[in-house]
Amino acid sequence: MDERAALRLLAGDLPHAGDDAAVLDGTVVTTDMLHETTDFPAGTTRYTAGWRAVGASLSDVAAMGAAATAAVAIYAAPSFDETDLGDFLRGARDVCAAVDAEYVGGDLDEHREFTVATTALGSLGDADPVLRSGAEPGDAVCVTGTLGRSAAALRLFERGEADRANDLFRFEPRVAAGRALAPHATAMMDSSDGLARSLHQLAEASDCGFRVGWEALPVDPSVADAAGNEADRRELAAHFGEDFELVFTVPEAALERAKEASPTPITRVGSVTESSAGVVADGEPLPDRGFTHSG
Amino acid sequence: MDERAALRLLAGDLPHAGDDAAVLDGTVVTTDMLHETTDFPAGTTRYTAGWRAVGASLSDVAAMGAAATAAVAIYAAPSFDETDLGDFLRGARDVCAAVDAEYVGGDLDEHREFTVATTALGSLGDADPVLRSGAEPGDAVCVTGTLGRSAAALRLFERGEADRANDLFRFEPRVAAGRALAPHATAMMDSSDGLARSLHQLAEASDCGFRVGWEALPVDPSVADAAGNEADRRELAAHFGEDFELVFTVPEAALERAKEASPTPITRVGSVTESSAGVVADGEPLPDRGFTHSG
Repeated sequence: MDERAALRLLAGDLPHAGDDAAVLDGTVVTTDMLHETTDFPAGTTRYTAGWRAVGASLSDVAAMGAAATAAVAIYAAPSFDETDLGDFLRGARDVCAAVDAEYVGGDLDEHREFTVATTALGSLGDADPVLRSGAEPGDAVCVTGTLGRSAAALRLFERGEADRANDLFRFEPRVAAGRALAPHATAMMDSSDGLARSLHQLAEASDCGFRVGWEALPVDPSVADAAGNEADRRELAAHFGEDFELVFTVPEAALERAKEASPTPITRVGSVTESSAGVVADGEPLPDRGFTHSG
Repeated sequence: MDERAALRLLAGDLPHAGDDAAVLDGTVVTTDMLHETTDFPAGTTRYTAGWRAVGASLSDVAAMGAAATAAVAIYAAPSFDETDLGDFLRGARDVCAAVDAEYVGGDLDEHREFTVATTALGSLGDADPVLRSGAEPGDAVCVTGTLGRSAAALRLFERGEADRANDLFRFEPRVAAGRALAPHATAMMDSSDGLARSLHQLAEASDCGFRVGWEALPVDPSVADAAGNEADRRELAAHFGEDFELVFTVPEAALERAKEASPTPITRVGSVTESSAGVVADGEPLPDRGFTHSG
């Protein structure tokens, strides 16, 4: 069973699961695990690791349109170095402070590989969560911020430019934007698997298609420097993922109000179409896949 | 830095952390990570693993005297077998149902070693949490249920008696008992590190000592079968841990009311003394350590 089939089993079995986070009586809960070998390239500081691991869960809270309230983390490592642990905690606390949440602690665990498990909580108050399933043909599809920062960071880590890479690797979870967009958005999720996969997941959940334009994508300036050519640039912007921006749909009539409400700039990248039209970029099918190494 | 020093760093740095769980606005949050090599002996079913992993976090909620509301888990494994995952989910849901909490889902992660990270939430309403720091000299010290079940289970796993071992390995988190005891208890924690370590941790937090009697310990009947001799029996009952019973202190005058209130039988194992008296069992110092293999 592949990971997606397993996730469907999880979701199908659990009435509150699915989407970016579970919802129970107005409380949003989401949990994530990151590993050194897959998520923290050589050169990632413990400060960045704490920021990024906790930020990834806060981003899931944002994607539901909820306020972030608290986060916890488990720090698992072969040994516990005081400086490393202190740096990690500062990162965890700082990313929480950036979105008005409280880092309320966590646990330690001895483990061969540096691994972090995080859980974030959010509050919807009386509002409904924004799910992945509400997009309607004719809606605009938009993203917050820029795409490709994490991809560019990875290239910089590979080149040994760790300082710039760490800066790019720390992202602001879009909690304030998610809250502001919630009253307008018909569907929303975060872009952690890349824009292409996000569109396919929204398409599946909403039974719709998407038409986007490559030129419309808000590609981060750092990508131009990191990418070898145009094909690579598109790969980094649309497939690499891990940017933790919000991908959302909004009725045409509400687009301007959504732009004005959001504290983070938003960019319209295309439109929602009928399901039969599939997910296309400049008229070509946009494959449902993450990053493929360009060789 | 050893794990305890690191945990002190965590607690000292975070106003809401420490104790068995963090508390924020009446919500209790706790998180844990378990690994195949250290926590799930050969023969542990995925059903038991799901039950036990989620149960460990629910036990931390119980130790604060809170009602358990929800739990999530991350299932990390090298591959995702449908039967394994389904069994794990059943175990996670069943242990939640046993304490009136909801299992609200989780996430999957590819990882070399089978690893589970769980988070449980609880609600205190308007009540104060029961901390580790309130024990007073003269109070009685008590435990819920019996001690040594997990130790006996481990021996049975080693002997290949996996069915009985799995039964013993699944425990009922003492959420109902924790709620009932909360109005009476002056300090409380769970016995996941063993009775001896729990007493030392309560002694440190409350600045007190403990005097317990070996004969007073409610040793689980399964231990007699598993232990080789009396020294081994004491080792399994007081040091092995992972029983997830509650260890708590209560004023003499409230002891009978606490007994009547608790849905789980409670046993008085000794008394709280002055800090200078240390932690003693039958007059001998009870070392602050977990399980030592008896050879």
